[in-house]
Amino acid sequence: MSNLRNIIVGQSGGPTSVINSSLAGVYKTAKERGFHKVYGMLHGVQGFLDEKYVDLSTQIHTDMDIELLKRTPSAFLGSCRYKLPEIHEDPDIYEKIFHILDKLEIEAFIYIGGNDSMDTIKKLSDYAIIKGHPQKFLGVPKTIDNDLALTDHTPGFGSAAKYIAASTKEVIRDALGLSYNKENITILEIMGRNAGWLTGATALAKTEECSGPDLIYLPELTFDMDKFLKKVQKLIKQKPNLVIAVSEGIRLADNRYVCELSGGPDYVDAFGHKQLQGTAAYLATFLGAEIGCKTRSIEFSTLQRSASHMASRTDIDEAFMVGGAAVKAADEGDTGKMVVIDRVSDDPYMSTAGIYDVHRIANNEKLVPREWVNKEGDFVTEDFIDYVKPLIQGDYAPFMVNGLPQHLVLDLDKK
Amino acid sequence: MSNLRNIIVGQSGGPTSVINSSLAGVYKTAKERGFHKVYGMLHGVQGFLDEKYVDLSTQIHTDMDIELLKRTPSAFLGSCRYKLPEIHEDPDIYEKIFHILDKLEIEAFIYIGGNDSMDTIKKLSDYAIIKGHPQKFLGVPKTIDNDLALTDHTPGFGSAAKYIAASTKEVIRDALGLSYNKENITILEIMGRNAGWLTGATALAKTEECSGPDLIYLPELTFDMDKFLKKVQKLIKQKPNLVIAVSEGIRLADNRYVCELSGGPDYVDAFGHKQLQGTAAYLATFLGAEIGCKTRSIEFSTLQRSASHMASRTDIDEAFMVGGAAVKAADEGDTGKMVVIDRVSDDPYMSTAGIYDVHRIANNEKLVPREWVNKEGDFVTEDFIDYVKPLIQGDYAPFMVNGLPQHLVLDLDKK
Repeated sequence: MSNLRNIIVGQSGGPTSVINSSLAGVYKTAKERGFHKVYGMLHGVQGFLDEKYVDLSTQIHTDMDIELLKRTPSAFLGSCRYKLPEIHEDPDIYEKIFHILDKLEIEAFIYIGGNDSMDTIKKLSDYAIIKGHPQKFLGVPKTIDNDLALTDHTPGFGSAAKYIAASTKEVIRDALGLSYNKENITILEIMGRNAGWLTGATALAKTEECSGPDLIYLPELTFDMDKFLKKVQKLIKQKPNLVIAVSEGIRLADNRYVCELSGGPDYVDAFGHKQLQGTAAYLATFLGAEIGCKTRSIEFSTLQRSASHMASRTDIDEAFMVGGAAVKAADEGDTGKMVVIDRVSDDPYMSTAGIYDVHRIANNEKLVPREWVNKEGDFVTEDFIDYVKPLIQGDYAPFMVNGLPQHLVLDLDKK
Repeated sequence: MSNLRNIIVGQSGGPTSVINSSLAGVYKTAKERGFHKVYGMLHGVQGFLDEKYVDLSTQIHTDMDIELLKRTPSAFLGSCRYKLPEIHEDPDIYEKIFHILDKLEIEAFIYIGGNDSMDTIKKLSDYAIIKGHPQKFLGVPKTIDNDLALTDHTPGFGSAAKYIAASTKEVIRDALGLSYNKENITILEIMGRNAGWLTGATALAKTEECSGPDLIYLPELTFDMDKFLKKVQKLIKQKPNLVIAVSEGIRLADNRYVCELSGGPDYVDAFGHKQLQGTAAYLATFLGAEIGCKTRSIEFSTLQRSASHMASRTDIDEAFMVGGAAVKAADEGDTGKMVVIDRVSDDPYMSTAGIYDVHRIANNEKLVPREWVNKEGDFVTEDFIDYVKPLIQGDYAPFMVNGLPQHLVLDLDKK
């Protein structure tokens, strides 16, 4: 190894509103700690294997660029959904990665992502130790789903929760404004295949001037169509206007996804995950037919993870913090670790960055605990709300240009 | 008639982000011009016929309340979809309305709404003149669809266009961030049954750092599935990541809505309008099968008309202005008129409130002119963009309370 201290950072998995704030944190801390070059891999490890990367100093020139990056949703560097094979399955890929790392004189490799990305960090740090490579490998958590173990919560979750709660408030106002002596049911479909953190966040729409959603169904609990119908039939007699939040991933007792009942086309992604869409539409059609009232389904869709104009300041700041903390940890000799967020205090809310061994983290999903859902299984408890509330606080005003939020966008022709 | 100068205001039709800014304008101007009581009818003429109304001074106490009302989406007073019968069809309804108006000592009746509401103003002012009733009837335009004739544009349109353009930018970032060497098509479904103003507004996402949508299909032009498929097949060879905007109301040459092709359930509203939903989902499934790539459909749904957190300052200010102008016109003796927005200048953008005879307006739909769509029929022209751009400028920062935008909400127990 030369004495050149370079660092490379990548982004992986589903985008969030604040994944670029972590990138900004990595870049700023790396520069401050005297790293020479800060490379960004394009489209994560997948692009890296094709030797696609960029010197980030060609993209980020000023503190204003850093601020703009913090307000830019989705992966600035491009993301990927790529699972590294086990070391014994394909050692050539590992050789290739370390060959490129040596060539670029990389001291630290920072990967911003979810469960699958932490698995990448684990494998690469294991390989480096086994083979005696000097590089450090650090993970920075990122997922709107909040399903990573050992961290109090994940960067990206708070902003998605804030967008969902704000949009739920607006949808409720819309539904109430229209309805007069007429029954009306709105079903909201929220992301989160196995973990109901985001679906539960619709409960935050319950404020002093908003009744919030009436029912909330998380994917952690078995969904019972009969029980659901009976509950709605009972409720609509007391309140003609219902708003119901469901996770895209709710499943019947026989394990079928509710969205599969509509008989729509299946799509399976690179990790073998089924593409889920149409749960709310199916339930709206079902209730419309059974109850005979007007129903509407609304999917917040990818806006949940990309609406940076409604991002949480707490979330953006924490995303920045964990990015910087990963660089600091690598610089101090850590490897095979993920930065986590430790909640120091609830009121006033305080958090710090901690470090965990990535072997203890990877591939464990953190689900909503049963005791944070009510007995009936159709709403979250005050404990759930108290946990999420601090994470949606505060704002970063978007930089508005010609009436629209401005973003920082990769330009490979820039010098 | 007594000497008491009371005024009543109602809201009708589909909600918008700024329909309450017009209400605020009515209230503030009425108070300033010395009207005694300002009543609000609950759920428009329909609630009024049930004698449901509220003294607005019990709801709005301070200038802060006015500001909060300007930032509250959907009809504060509740809306309705009610079409007044022709005078000869049901004179009793007219007698009842004027009986209540006399009882409340109303001098002016202000109705905030779309085409159907202007029809109500026309009928009531005709009836008053025929029967010698002294009340004045004034219409205030409101619709996200921008399909009212004679006004340069409608309050509500600019904010919906701004939300759509901002969300389109975010969706495009999201789609680009994920895609690596893989074809990917996102289809956005935009409101506007017959008029493509909002679908065309996705073109505003094309900015210095965003390529904008690739194709735009308005409901004014016949949609050709074969031509569409061929265009997409050609385009995706040059650009693996496509974002396509379609109106919910696009129709085939045989007049069927594209959303009807999926064979989903029909819903017909009080005006006999078919509920349209599923156009993008149908096209996404169609393209997925024909091209064999990943597709996603996104409906912006009711958030287009209720996302007041992304409202346009120009729009909120103009909505306020036309509300106030209606009160001024009534106070000066006008009746059977609608307030319109006249564009005085493009650059710098300036507008004023004008007055038009409602007989010249009602039930005419203003569509996107053919010359504002390109020859191919799959994008809007620079003239279209120049027309919309001034309408999305500027913001009113939401009043954030506990991390979420606060709204002013009707409370009938308040004094």
